Amino acid sequence: MADVSLNIAKQGVFSAGGTTQQAPGTFDPVDGQMAPEGQIRHSDHANVFYQIPVDGNGRSLLFLHGYGQSRTGWMGTPDGRPGFSDLFLRKGYGVYLVDQPRRASAGQSSVPVTISATPDDLNWFTQFRMGLWPEFTDNVQFPRDEKSVDQFFRQMTPDTGEFDVEVITSALVAALAESGPASLVTHSQGGIPGWFTAIASENVESVIAIEPGTFVFPEGEVPDVIPTKYAIPVQGIGVPLAHFDKLTRKPIAIYFGDNIPSEPSKVPAWDFWRGTLELAHRFAAVVNAHGGDAKVFHLPEEGVNGNDHFMFQDLNNGDVVDHMASWMATKGLT
Amino acid sequence: MADVSLNIAKQGVFSAGGTTQQAPGTFDPVDGQMAPEGQIRHSDHANVFYQIPVDGNGRSLLFLHGYGQSRTGWMGTPDGRPGFSDLFLRKGYGVYLVDQPRRASAGQSSVPVTISATPDDLNWFTQFRMGLWPEFTDNVQFPRDEKSVDQFFRQMTPDTGEFDVEVITSALVAALAESGPASLVTHSQGGIPGWFTAIASENVESVIAIEPGTFVFPEGEVPDVIPTKYAIPVQGIGVPLAHFDKLTRKPIAIYFGDNIPSEPSKVPAWDFWRGTLELAHRFAAVVNAHGGDAKVFHLPEEGVNGNDHFMFQDLNNGDVVDHMASWMATKGLT
Repeated sequence: MADVSLNIAKQGVFSAGGTTQQAPGTFDPVDGQMAPEGQIRHSDHANVFYQIPVDGNGRSLLFLHGYGQSRTGWMGTPDGRPGFSDLFLRKGYGVYLVDQPRRASAGQSSVPVTISATPDDLNWFTQFRMGLWPEFTDNVQFPRDEKSVDQFFRQMTPDTGEFDVEVITSALVAALAESGPASLVTHSQGGIPGWFTAIASENVESVIAIEPGTFVFPEGEVPDVIPTKYAIPVQGIGVPLAHFDKLTRKPIAIYFGDNIPSEPSKVPAWDFWRGTLELAHRFAAVVNAHGGDAKVFHLPEEGVNGNDHFMFQDLNNGDVVDHMASWMATKGLT
Repeated sequence: MADVSLNIAKQGVFSAGGTTQQAPGTFDPVDGQMAPEGQIRHSDHANVFYQIPVDGNGRSLLFLHGYGQSRTGWMGTPDGRPGFSDLFLRKGYGVYLVDQPRRASAGQSSVPVTISATPDDLNWFTQFRMGLWPEFTDNVQFPRDEKSVDQFFRQMTPDTGEFDVEVITSALVAALAESGPASLVTHSQGGIPGWFTAIASENVESVIAIEPGTFVFPEGEVPDVIPTKYAIPVQGIGVPLAHFDKLTRKPIAIYFGDNIPSEPSKVPAWDFWRGTLELAHRFAAVVNAHGGDAKVFHLPEEGVNGNDHFMFQDLNNGDVVDHMASWMATKGLT
């Protein structure tokens, strides 16, 4: 619940990018309204909700969610406090909140899909470093009441088509053509199309990557797989040097929360984060070696403790926003 | 694009209602993080985005979309003008915008689903009375530029589980328990769970049903099927009289747009609307015969012309809001 009002100059929704398919034949609205002949399908677009504050700072942020999530994750917290979008609006930023292609309100996909209803929520409780169900990690900044935990899990929403980095990147580039210059804020899996979007769009002014799933490196400079106990290898993605160079021309901040083990962990999901944090440091080193400006902020080292993978919803999400806004200020992005 | 600013006292998102399932066995976050044993699934909730204006009138509206749509349809128009939510916010109403269970951001379903990618957009162009593709109906209040048409189609988003009136009604009742008393605004297919929600929740103060898919009647008073050329019969749903009586205790306004034929039409989709408008009049007559207060507004008879099935996005959507707000004023709902 907001404790001060928000004065919004304009808000709205739009679709960005996407494709169209047309079935063979000729559409007949009278005798063949429901027949496939000649019908068109619009799909693979992103959906964007935006809010621009009155008397803002003229800067914008474009937010991309992670795996199994939608833009709603930026718009509030499980316990009903202001989310990142409200907190940044109050600092004067315009916000563009994306549902990526084939997710949530951008559900129309060019490819069919089967969605199971297999229970897997507790997997994510582990993966997102809330704790080892049903126990919370001691210092975790997650609201522990039953209602908040329930609300947290209900944020999950499935893919309505295969996750496709190219499709998502294309739609994000189109969204940025509408928004104009913006800092790109990504979370988790969203970090992957995030790097490709930052390469492809000159409208990306800076990148704030919250615990991104992986990183890109110049071909020939991709580090060896970092061994962890997790099922999915911790591994960078090679891109042509000319593409990687685009990332060296915009400031990049990478944020990691707390409770990431410094030594191999018996919990595979947590060991994944140990490896991914190590990969983040290697990415920043390569960006900087190529003349760029990338910095990894491991929040406990910044005096901000207890954050899980959803630092933008944690009880101290205001502190996290303040840290990010301070970083943006040092880059002239205020 | 808003031409005046909106002063928002608070905004946010929450999930409402839903169910949980648990797989047999015991969850092991260390050695079985991704195994099904003991895992939980939270599903079948609604997702609600709300905005409450500063210095509002203290009244709220809860909006439910129609088939293949999400709440984004209330939040803007294909040509970027303010949607119904902005227009009602400016009149002082709080707005609660629902994604129903198994749709858009409320995608997590308790039942699996297969979603096809078969093109069918032109079907909806006919069904929604924009015209006979690629021709627009002469007076239709739809923006005809290519970009707006593209944006319109991209609002479609699929069900991520079977459409289930009971599941949706249950989640809406839970949403209304959070919102408090509100007028329920439904569109199209959403009108069906809308009637059941108005029966089940005392927090529904009034109903504004925009071209609802069908209507409820007391058992024994359901009219015969109204013959039309459409594939789906135009038919009411019988409910126990004690349930129907709940609808007689709150004002009900039913809105229909333009270009509904008064005689049988060669276009099956349009003939459906002829039958449905007739059924609406029968519904209102039965509500009123039971002591209720239902009124059908056929907009052309009110001097508001050219509206298609998406009157809340049409070029004259401000006129439609004004008409609805005037009706609410006559019911003391301002």
